[in-house]
Amino acid sequence: MITLYGDIISGNCYKTYLIANLLDIPVHWVNVDIMAGEAQTAKFQQKNPNAKIPLLELEDGRLLSESNAIINYLADGSALIPQDQFLKAKVLEWQFFEQYSHEPFIAVARFINKYQGLPAERKAEYESKQAGGHKALSIMDKQLQKSDYLVSDQLTTADISLYAYTHVAHEGGFDLTPYSGINAWIERIRSLPKYIGMSLKPEHQ
Amino acid sequence: MITLYGDIISGNCYKTYLIANLLDIPVHWVNVDIMAGEAQTAKFQQKNPNAKIPLLELEDGRLLSESNAIINYLADGSALIPQDQFLKAKVLEWQFFEQYSHEPFIAVARFINKYQGLPAERKAEYESKQAGGHKALSIMDKQLQKSDYLVSDQLTTADISLYAYTHVAHEGGFDLTPYSGINAWIERIRSLPKYIGMSLKPEHQ
Repeated sequence: MITLYGDIISGNCYKTYLIANLLDIPVHWVNVDIMAGEAQTAKFQQKNPNAKIPLLELEDGRLLSESNAIINYLADGSALIPQDQFLKAKVLEWQFFEQYSHEPFIAVARFINKYQGLPAERKAEYESKQAGGHKALSIMDKQLQKSDYLVSDQLTTADISLYAYTHVAHEGGFDLTPYSGINAWIERIRSLPKYIGMSLKPEHQ
Repeated sequence: MITLYGDIISGNCYKTYLIANLLDIPVHWVNVDIMAGEAQTAKFQQKNPNAKIPLLELEDGRLLSESNAIINYLADGSALIPQDQFLKAKVLEWQFFEQYSHEPFIAVARFINKYQGLPAERKAEYESKQAGGHKALSIMDKQLQKSDYLVSDQLTTADISLYAYTHVAHEGGFDLTPYSGINAWIERIRSLPKYIGMSLKPEHQ
């Protein structure tokens, strides 16, 4: 069985256990407490020198980090990765967009607000995240007015990547009300068979 | 013929024309002047609402953004993308590492220093990038002490992704002297047949 190291408060980790559940992949879940600095220990850094979660460990000990690399690996060969060369590249386009133009705004604002309680010394930084976050949401909404999912009318791993922090964006101060395309898409994903919410550990352990 | 929109001062754009040259893919190059704000125009945003370069346009008008998505698309089916499922995921791991843990430090410090002339109002930000940049370089060097290239002893698109800003990291104030693994790897890449340097436009136009 594969092992996933992560923390259920992290959207990046949520991507991995949501995919595992959707695809019925049994996983052994090892909790790594971010707030307690458990990803920063020398022991954990032997597994991932970048000191980040999630981290996937195969039965033979091989290791894979980066949430979007992990979910594409787990979904390889499934219907969640298109066979078509161009559509497969569009999955990656959305995933790199997520890590560069979405997560650094929405996930960071959420962390400062929800987990640090919006301390005075990070308020300016929190506020500076709002414009970039709304820009990312607008770009997603524009596409989701045109297709049911981000790459096409079929669910792909790109949707899982973007869903993770988008569906909790309000916890970072982002009002999703104006984004009707995003809201309909969130409902579509919530209705998937084998969907599990964030903060629920994977069923298979 | 495909069209690439980009600016030769950008490492993200360099990835795309270096790959095209290595793989002998003819491209039509359209210069988009970053310093003049040409990626921010309404006209360009019709092609990429995220207002970023590089951008790939196929002959039929389909568009693909995000440098690492573009290079994986161009290299799909070549020896630069491993067939093995796990090694293919390791390529993505390094590419997501590049966009989240390397580029925001090294490329941004280089831009502030080389293209903005290190203005007083960005000096603190420039200095704040040094620790993260050196952490990323250390992680790369650790791997490059073990294998000739990042994923294995074979060149992959992950190497092109990381090479782009690493080989000009000194322009962001990062002294590469201590990283012997990185220096040997830079020489290996520079010696590739069909290698072209940054700031040289693609041969095929």
